[in-house]
Order: sequence, then structure tokens, then C-alpha cells
Amino acid sequence: MTLLAVGSIAFDDLETPAGTKGNLLGGSATYFSLCASNFCHVQLVAVVGEDFGQEEEAVFNGRPIDLDGVARKPGSCFRWKGRYGADLNEAQTLQTDLNVFADFTPSLPSRYRDAQYLFLGNIDPRLQLEVLSQMSAKPTWAALDTMNYWIDGSRGELEKVLRKVDILLINEAEAKSLSGEKNAVRAAKAIAAMGPGTVVVKRGEYGALIAAPGQCFPVPALPMETVIDPTGAGDTFAGGFLGFLASKGDMGESTLRQAALVGTVMASFAIEGFGTANLAAAKKPDIQDRLESFSKMLGITGL
Amino acid sequence: MTLLAVGSIAFDDLETPAGTKGNLLGGSATYFSLCASNFCHVQLVAVVGEDFGQEEEAVFNGRPIDLDGVARKPGSCFRWKGRYGADLNEAQTLQTDLNVFADFTPSLPSRYRDAQYLFLGNIDPRLQLEVLSQMSAKPTWAALDTMNYWIDGSRGELEKVLRKVDILLINEAEAKSLSGEKNAVRAAKAIAAMGPGTVVVKRGEYGALIAAPGQCFPVPALPMETVIDPTGAGDTFAGGFLGFLASKGDMGESTLRQAALVGTVMASFAIEGFGTANLAAAKKPDIQDRLESFSKMLGITGL
Repeated sequence: MTLLAVGSIAFDDLETPAGTKGNLLGGSATYFSLCASNFCHVQLVAVVGEDFGQEEEAVFNGRPIDLDGVARKPGSCFRWKGRYGADLNEAQTLQTDLNVFADFTPSLPSRYRDAQYLFLGNIDPRLQLEVLSQMSAKPTWAALDTMNYWIDGSRGELEKVLRKVDILLINEAEAKSLSGEKNAVRAAKAIAAMGPGTVVVKRGEYGALIAAPGQCFPVPALPMETVIDPTGAGDTFAGGFLGFLASKGDMGESTLRQAALVGTVMASFAIEGFGTANLAAAKKPDIQDRLESFSKMLGITGL
Repeated sequence: MTLLAVGSIAFDDLETPAGTKGNLLGGSATYFSLCASNFCHVQLVAVVGEDFGQEEEAVFNGRPIDLDGVARKPGSCFRWKGRYGADLNEAQTLQTDLNVFADFTPSLPSRYRDAQYLFLGNIDPRLQLEVLSQMSAKPTWAALDTMNYWIDGSRGELEKVLRKVDILLINEAEAKSLSGEKNAVRAAKAIAAMGPGTVVVKRGEYGALIAAPGQCFPVPALPMETVIDPTGAGDTFAGGFLGFLASKGDMGESTLRQAALVGTVMASFAIEGFGTANLAAAKKPDIQDRLESFSKMLGITGL
């Protein structure tokens, strides 16, 4: 079971109410792959600059993460500077430097091209289409992330990608924007009908709403008393959700629910520390323990 | 098992995206008692004017609701005119006429005074204290609802009531305001420590967060595709939650979770129609069916 993931590797400079940290290795592909690698083999496609050295590479070492698809280019990595206010729900972007990411053209190593599962991280829908076109066989499922920037600015291309994928992960405001629906359930169902049969509406601390053929159900998030840094929570959720799905090989209701519980548990580790440190430190027994206590908290038995 | 409930009986004039309806019988005590009466015997304390006639009384008939504590006064019932925008999450008050409610002084009929369970609806904390003082024996539990108006304007009195009750139902923004905490889990725990050991943080379409001694867990709301009129959803949730608790007689984690599921299922009936019509029309088999399908949707077995 191999999950091919395309996304960004970046350096983040973060200000949260818990403090300020600079030069943290981040980016959607980093959070996603560190998380998913707890559940399945990951093949990564991204681009880095000359500032991605041995120290950064070591973050991925010792995990089933294949970095051969990470292109190394002259220049610097994508860099993001952000600030979170007291409620931690919305990041304020202070500065974005695309650097090598500006010319990112994903190129899949030949052995990546028949991956069973595919995650198209939040990048230009044109690049997402390009990745799909490079696959030698249609994956068992392809999953997509996107954001308002593409919904507003590249809608035609985004709709093309949506018709070609099986799962969309999207936050609630974006789901409403993409569908034109004010109600989350209607939004999820409308988007599911645009192509992906399965839509995961991410609701942050409120969990997720999952629409899949013939079903629509909510999954709460693990209640967190202490949030140090919410950066990457959504990418981590996606990594847990999709990594778990890939490990199971089915998409029944019970598996989708378990996948969402795994996603929120993994995100809970991520946000307990700055950057990826806490996520990377979570070992399988830690994950299993938290998953079991969360399931018990929800009255769910037989996981 | 008798649940004594104090609150308002009102006429509502409502505008929602689904339409405009006037002269609907509403008020917190109306929604609460119609709902709770599916699970236990209710003794109602409220005040009505001369415009509360046989037609209005008939709404309560045929249910285990004792209206002897509803005072009839010269003048008109409390009247509220409100409007909901497209997202249905927040009501805009267009007009409030307190009428007979302005001089409401609850007076418990003598046979109400030893009720086993007590719900103090969202009224002036001074009146809530007055009701508590009229009880001849401490009830098994007393539950409280409140709102920003009292949090901001009558904090001292509210804190006095909080020290005397066992359960608080409060919405998330109000919980944060009352506790001064930005995080919902911290807010719930801080309020629990102010007196009520059990705090139910109501999150609307996102469900509820329940803090009780040694535990804190989320319960999602039933996903609703069609919402006609959200008026009374919180009071209906409270009626289902507390009515179910009263019927069970214990407050263990499993009972609290089931009570929250009952509350959200009852609220789902209420918001499917204008006013109390749909709530009143829901029969026990309808309730049981929806409760079972919601539990199944959540992966919860053994309800």
C-alpha cells in the first residue's frame, strides 16, 4: 500500500500566543507525509531549495517515506510567515516567499507512477491535473485538497480535477464557497456530485462532516485544552485520514469514521507543539492510546 | 420523576429564509416542556397574558405537563419578533415586548416545591434564586440556562445561582464570556468549578461539549440539510437533555452522552418547521427511529 503525495515543503516563521519560532520545517507535504507514514508507505513529490539540508532531510529519515520525488533546485525553499491570534482558528499571513515553489512542476519518478493511492495537496489545479496525467494507471483512489485561492481564481481547472478524483478534503467555509450552498450538509453533497463521491468537510475544533455515497455523518474532534501551534493541523488530519484509508483498502462507513478519528488524533499531537516536533515524536503506542481513549470518550466501541 | 421548569411563554413573529410567520406560540418554557414531556412529567412555572387562550393551552394538552404554575395576568404575553439571515446561526431581534413578563415573579404551587429535578430557564438570576428559595427540599439536581445579558449585567447574582446548581447549559460564546477563557474546554472546566459540576456547552450545528467531574467529551449534532426555523432549538435541546436525564435518574458518562443525543435529535425535529409544530408532532416512535439512526451514524452501539 503506497500513498503518493504531492505538496509543499517549506520553512515557517510562526507567532502564536504560546511564542515565536522561526525556520521551522513545514509545508503541507511535510505534515502530511510525517503523519501518513505511521500507517502506510509514502512517496513524496515536492520541491526544495539549497537550504533544505541534511538536518531537514533527517526529519523524514527512519520512516517509510520515499524522497526521490523531491526535486532540489537552486534557490530557497518556500517560506511562510504567519501569526495566530488568541482564538487560534485563523492564521494571518505576514509574508509569503514562493522561492523555488514558484516554478514547481511536479515530475513523478517512474516507479511512483503506478501508486495505488494518490493525494494531490493544495497546489495549482493545473499542477494537480499534470500529476494525474503522469500516472501510468488510475489509482484505486485519488484525494484532493484545495483552498479559496483556487476556488476563486482557477475554478474551471479545479472543476476538471474534481471530476477526476474520488475524495476531496476541504474546510467548511471553502466548501460553502465552492458549492454556493450556505448549509454544510448541502455543500458537502453538492460537491460530492461535482466528481469526488466522498467529501470531508473539515471543521477545525468541531471535527469533520463526511459525505459519501448514501451517507453523511459528523465526526467530532478531540477536545484540546492546550493548543501551541495550529499550523499544519489540516494537512496532518489529511495524512492520518488518507494514510489510514490506504492501510485499510476499503472506504466503508466504519472505515471512513475510523479514518477521521485517526486524522483528528494525529492533528491533536501536531498542535501540541510548534511545527512538526510533536507530530514526529508521537510513536505508535501513543497514537493507539489516544485513539482508544478518544473512541471511548465518544462511546464508540469495536474500533 | 418530575421535572419542574421555569421560563417564558411567548408569542413569536418570525422571519426566516423559509418564510414569515406571526403569532406562533413560543418561549423557552414552551419548547422546553413540549420536548421534556416525551420523557418525564413536567411542572411548568411561567406567566401568560389574556391572549393565552384555549387554543394556546391546547398545545400542552394530552402531555404530562402540569400548567397550574402558569400565572395568568392582565395584559399580553411576552412577544418577540426576530429575523434569521441565510446562515441561520444568529437571530436578529427586531422587537421585544416583555408585557406580563416584565413583572414575572415566579410563585411555585405548594405541590411543585419538592420536585425531584429543577430547570431554571433563562431569566433574571434574581428570579432563579427566588425559585430555588421556594423549594422545600433540595432537588436531586438543578439545571440552569443563562445568556450574555445576565453574564454582563447581573454577574454577582448569576455567580450566586451558579454555586447552587448542578448543571449549566450555555452556548459557546457565552461560556467563553462567562469564564474569560478563549478555549472551549478550558471555559467549560472553569465554569464547572464555579459551582455546577456539569457544564453543557451548546455549539449549535456542531453539537455540544460536555464537561462533568473527571471527563470532558464532545457530542455532535445531527446533520440537517433543511432548517426552516431555528427558534427554540437550544430550549428544545435542554428539554431533551434534561428530560432524558430525569427519566434515567443517573448522570454517568453514558447517560450524559445519550441525553445529548436525545437533545440534538429533539432539536432536529423542532427546526424542521416553524415554531413548535414539528416538535409537537414528533411521536415516540419517530423520536426512537431518529435516535437509533443517529447513534448508528455515529458508530455508537448499545444505546
